[in-house]
Amino acid sequence: MKTLLLHARTFARIAPRLKGLNAALNIVTVDDAQRFHDAWTSRALDGPPQVDLAFGNIDAFYSPSVREFMTAILKSPDFDWFQSAAAGIENPALVAIGQKSKRYTTNHTQAESMAEWAIWQAMDFFRAGPGHRANQAIGKWERIRVREMQGSGWLIVGYGSIGQAVGKRVSALGGTVTGVRRTPGPAEGAARIVPPDALMAQLPGADVVLLCPPHTPETEGMANAAFFAAMNESALFLNLGRGALVNEDALMAALDAGRPAFAALDVTRTEPLPAESPLWKHHKLVITPHDSSDTPGTITRGDETFLANLRHYLDNEPMKHLVDRAAFAAG
Amino acid sequence: MKTLLLHARTFARIAPRLKGLNAALNIVTVDDAQRFHDAWTSRALDGPPQVDLAFGNIDAFYSPSVREFMTAILKSPDFDWFQSAAAGIENPALVAIGQKSKRYTTNHTQAESMAEWAIWQAMDFFRAGPGHRANQAIGKWERIRVREMQGSGWLIVGYGSIGQAVGKRVSALGGTVTGVRRTPGPAEGAARIVPPDALMAQLPGADVVLLCPPHTPETEGMANAAFFAAMNESALFLNLGRGALVNEDALMAALDAGRPAFAALDVTRTEPLPAESPLWKHHKLVITPHDSSDTPGTITRGDETFLANLRHYLDNEPMKHLVDRAAFAAG
Repeated sequence: MKTLLLHARTFARIAPRLKGLNAALNIVTVDDAQRFHDAWTSRALDGPPQVDLAFGNIDAFYSPSVREFMTAILKSPDFDWFQSAAAGIENPALVAIGQKSKRYTTNHTQAESMAEWAIWQAMDFFRAGPGHRANQAIGKWERIRVREMQGSGWLIVGYGSIGQAVGKRVSALGGTVTGVRRTPGPAEGAARIVPPDALMAQLPGADVVLLCPPHTPETEGMANAAFFAAMNESALFLNLGRGALVNEDALMAALDAGRPAFAALDVTRTEPLPAESPLWKHHKLVITPHDSSDTPGTITRGDETFLANLRHYLDNEPMKHLVDRAAFAAG
Repeated sequence: MKTLLLHARTFARIAPRLKGLNAALNIVTVDDAQRFHDAWTSRALDGPPQVDLAFGNIDAFYSPSVREFMTAILKSPDFDWFQSAAAGIENPALVAIGQKSKRYTTNHTQAESMAEWAIWQAMDFFRAGPGHRANQAIGKWERIRVREMQGSGWLIVGYGSIGQAVGKRVSALGGTVTGVRRTPGPAEGAARIVPPDALMAQLPGADVVLLCPPHTPETEGMANAAFFAAMNESALFLNLGRGALVNEDALMAALDAGRPAFAALDVTRTEPLPAESPLWKHHKLVITPHDSSDTPGTITRGDETFLANLRHYLDNEPMKHLVDRAAFAAG
């Protein structure tokens, strides 16, 4: 019988869905106070159990017990399957688990919430959110001529699950989307797909440029001075990918020089971003603390992905979003 | 031959589209300096001309020459057709024109931009815009669990052109829309249509309540203490209709009492809103200066509506959005 490790809060939420699996599965939990329990009996365990399966989500990775959660996985002799709640696999903790686990599956439903972040930032930019708020602060009734999402042109760099979730929303709101990726189109939500070597030629025509490609040696620092200089001076730059995609000094210099017009970053090179970073104070820059995926909907959809893959696992059927083990090979 | 009055800026924009109509139409313009000209020859006119047709848009009504524009229409002996760029007809200036003009047509394409205002405000509320900005101001990296547009429930009071433009966008983003109006459904963008007497029963279940009905004796002050008390404590209240739909003191008291959670108003009872109004300073209230329709797109779509109706007028075909003259009868 396999042993599954869940955060206690995750178990509490999905326990009704796990009841039918008693015969096939032993379940243990870790709570925020570093305590392990047998899930169904609530019996306390003496220290970290040996586990075969685990579900690593916000509950686990943003818990004070994240170290205990990780250690239980990495010290188990025969760890078989890890379900991540995230799409990315390049975080060092995830790489360590990926190297340990026989099977590793990702989850792409965070994209829904992340896409809403992009719509939020674009609407606030197009509708002159900062200007309207400055006027409200001084009680000034002054009409501002603003721009429309309808008819806007988007360049989405990295047209995977996140890019597509954004593209579908932008298209539904009347915008036009060009997606940049290696795999040719068509792709849902995009009017067209262009290859990465066409990126620079596409930059001048875009009202919004969104980065969400994987972080690789090719994409490291891709948003540099030349990239920003090629953007339209009225355009918005968004980053939902990784902080390392952006040369932050080049971004601030570009904003100061007036091209692009504005930027919003959900990710930064150093996270948490130190309070003294000049990024916080730049008046043409919105910073959010890598929380674009942090919604109840993300948690619910992550649970559903895990439960569906757990059923596939127990039934020896193919699991969704299985990652090739070579992806975790030591670089 | 009929004489058409346009603002000079409007003429400059659409002149290429008017060239074919030389034989059928005399065109005069008024500019921001109160001067009238023959449009094609630029010959200055001695004072206000007699006119038969006019197009009243943002150029004309937000011009320093709005009085001259109005007077030319109201003093002409035989005024035949007025094209408004607006959907509403209850503004006193529009009522005066409506009583004077043999034919009066409205325009409903401002709804597109106004609908984007509603999406903007809802996204900023769901994504905790104020909380994120407060944290950025002090350089505080703290994740905030936010809500999603996807799965949200909207109650749109007044499901005409504006309501429907909002409903289509909300549905496309994964929300569910209930429209309130007299005419039964179905209607595009709405999961269901309910009659006005069902409004109070629908309020508790909505995440967002948007007002955009016409201003009538029945809707005057409809958003009062009882209305707000029936809303969900986590809900957002939006007004895109008229300021007079809302009891503003009741709204501030309701926000202070914690129900609804937040509100945004593009219209207020007194416009311009005086700098000393407490509405500006309320920390759970966003005020925008009745500019939700002020986009280049609105102007372009208004031009298109006018040009299409002008062709219908000259060809003696039925015009779009012709208003029943009884609507302007002295109350």
